[in-house]
Amino acid sequence: MFKVNENYLKLPGSYLFSTIAKKVSEFADANPDKEIIRLGIGDVTQPLAPAIVKALHAAVDEMANADTFKGYAPDLGYDFLRNAIVENDYKARGCDIAADEIFVSDGAKSDSGNIQEIFSADAKIAVCDPVYPVYVDSNVMSGRTGEYDEKTGTWSNVIYMPTTMENGFVPEFPKETPQLIYLCFPNNPTGTTITKTQLQEWVDYANRVGAVIIYDAAYEAYISEDNVAHSIYECKGAKTCAIEIKSFSKNAGFTGVRLGYTVVPKDLKCGSASLNAMWARRHGTKFNGAPYIQQRAGEAVYSAEGKAQLKEQIAYYMNNAKTIKDGLEKAGYTVFGGVNAPYIWLKTPDNMSSWDFFDFLLEKANVVGTPGSGFGPNGEGYFRLTAFGSYENTVRALERIQKL
Amino acid sequence: MFKVNENYLKLPGSYLFSTIAKKVSEFADANPDKEIIRLGIGDVTQPLAPAIVKALHAAVDEMANADTFKGYAPDLGYDFLRNAIVENDYKARGCDIAADEIFVSDGAKSDSGNIQEIFSADAKIAVCDPVYPVYVDSNVMSGRTGEYDEKTGTWSNVIYMPTTMENGFVPEFPKETPQLIYLCFPNNPTGTTITKTQLQEWVDYANRVGAVIIYDAAYEAYISEDNVAHSIYECKGAKTCAIEIKSFSKNAGFTGVRLGYTVVPKDLKCGSASLNAMWARRHGTKFNGAPYIQQRAGEAVYSAEGKAQLKEQIAYYMNNAKTIKDGLEKAGYTVFGGVNAPYIWLKTPDNMSSWDFFDFLLEKANVVGTPGSGFGPNGEGYFRLTAFGSYENTVRALERIQKL
Repeated sequence: MFKVNENYLKLPGSYLFSTIAKKVSEFADANPDKEIIRLGIGDVTQPLAPAIVKALHAAVDEMANADTFKGYAPDLGYDFLRNAIVENDYKARGCDIAADEIFVSDGAKSDSGNIQEIFSADAKIAVCDPVYPVYVDSNVMSGRTGEYDEKTGTWSNVIYMPTTMENGFVPEFPKETPQLIYLCFPNNPTGTTITKTQLQEWVDYANRVGAVIIYDAAYEAYISEDNVAHSIYECKGAKTCAIEIKSFSKNAGFTGVRLGYTVVPKDLKCGSASLNAMWARRHGTKFNGAPYIQQRAGEAVYSAEGKAQLKEQIAYYMNNAKTIKDGLEKAGYTVFGGVNAPYIWLKTPDNMSSWDFFDFLLEKANVVGTPGSGFGPNGEGYFRLTAFGSYENTVRALERIQKL
Repeated sequence: MFKVNENYLKLPGSYLFSTIAKKVSEFADANPDKEIIRLGIGDVTQPLAPAIVKALHAAVDEMANADTFKGYAPDLGYDFLRNAIVENDYKARGCDIAADEIFVSDGAKSDSGNIQEIFSADAKIAVCDPVYPVYVDSNVMSGRTGEYDEKTGTWSNVIYMPTTMENGFVPEFPKETPQLIYLCFPNNPTGTTITKTQLQEWVDYANRVGAVIIYDAAYEAYISEDNVAHSIYECKGAKTCAIEIKSFSKNAGFTGVRLGYTVVPKDLKCGSASLNAMWARRHGTKFNGAPYIQQRAGEAVYSAEGKAQLKEQIAYYMNNAKTIKDGLEKAGYTVFGGVNAPYIWLKTPDNMSSWDFFDFLLEKANVVGTPGSGFGPNGEGYFRLTAFGSYENTVRALERIQKL
């Protein structure tokens, strides 16, 4: 009789956002007259930029003609996109990354879930707490995380690095040495970030202890301050210790388009085993390339027209972030993030639990956010609002919150 | 110091199609005057059907407008596509499959590579020999296959089921009981298939021994004979023992578009563990939904217009298949497949090895095919040609082969 992967059965309950969706749906059913404003999930709302729409249409037309039709894409991505990434995301920032170190994919979620596969089954992972759930859950599925403790909401074999207001949301080097370190800056969910100098310390640490940093740079486009790195490869020595995962979801509104990439430097090795070659093998075996149409859309992100339009789109969302931040502060809340990221992380008032505040906000202001505790035990007492709504809704949500 | 997944290092050499590409490229460089015709890789060449192009453009336009813009898709697929699949691929064939048993993905290669994840690490797999390399390689990466024997080209912990002219390309039940059985009918690479009665015997066998069949139905649209099942769920009892993987690549030319789906019935359980729930969890954790644009294109495959256009497209390729089959037979070759599948599997003449015949065909006829031995030891002495070229090139290739 066949048997299942028992690690899956260790995963607790349902996914955070499913629970939220259920609660919201129940409230909406019971209160059909109330207009709910959703500032919960990190999904964009602005339409695709005209330059991207144009590129998509052009690529579709190519697929309609035998002379220009494209079948299987190169597993690792078309050169036109990999070269555009190299030029714009790396060379322009002084980072020496080559096109064959770029792996184009259907998005950062797939990559951040799959990347653990190329590491040993007993690799010890370290994550910030609170954290994007995919890093931990994908390692649970692979059996790396030990047992779940329902009381503490933690796994026995995971190193948690608290990031809270007490340490200014800057994780400290863990006491126990990890083999894999997941870092996401600007951070989801806290919306905070660390300086380039602080990131350099992490790179030095990883090189010193022989760890690999999985660096999630999905929110890089929202950085507004000068002393923050847009790529981990701005730090010296990162090519021997870091993999960088990038998304087009947040800088170009591709959440429903699906495109991302991962950088695995050729200098990243364990003895003679090249992680670049291993990830290429995984891509070639379990993936069949990102769609041609999407890769042309990705290329348009780097066109002069595309860049100008997306700069505006990001400014639009960051104006929402400012609106939320200022509005909450005016209402007396303690607020973090929102300067280099589209997320605002607030301290719940009166020591309310994250879920109590979720219910309070939903019932009293009809605004949906995300309870911080859903991202890990150290998220308890915090709450996330996102800047990805429309400006009008964001303003109205804040007006309601200020009246509470 | 971090360690890598050592299983990856067991994988022999480079991927079959990379080796072919290298050989062809070397030949082309050395013989710039020769016009090479490629009937090797299973990639389509006809442009997307007009109904699909129309759906793609319409979906792109929706993404350009704030009112109709789509962000994250539901992880498991939009209802409009899952319902169209249920109606057309299952209900119309008398199969009782529900929409929540359909998981839309970026393609059958991803699904057939990832599906092994939800099974136990020590699950014994059985594959046909020759076989699509992804089934074995993805299990190598997970450590299920034991050690590789370079002499025999086999893995110590894999059950091989020979499919050769001697057994009419019908695999026999293995002596040792497997937990996972990979079956692909119509078959890649042999282009042959089994009858519905024979498939029913496999379903009965799997239910009897408690195995799961991973059924790859990527070539279903090419079936021309009545006694062949289009879906394994046409067989009684398949819902308690079979997962079906379907592609839009071959029935609709989506190799560069990327769309597929997998059916995991709710009746498929190991004790109280539901494989449907486990696959949903994997999809939700390591995947972020197939793109909206692609899902609308998938929906168009099932429109009246789309169906009529794709019927013509398949007839076009099957006419190529007939051209290859008839042409080879006329030239004295022993030929299989090409009736219910776009692949022709020929016995190499004069006991030539598969690779010798590859070189012979490339040098003398400037035609590229795929050596059978690349699909497994029992593919030695065979050679695959595909019907996915243009009609003109197919005719010319056969003229050249007939002159040899």
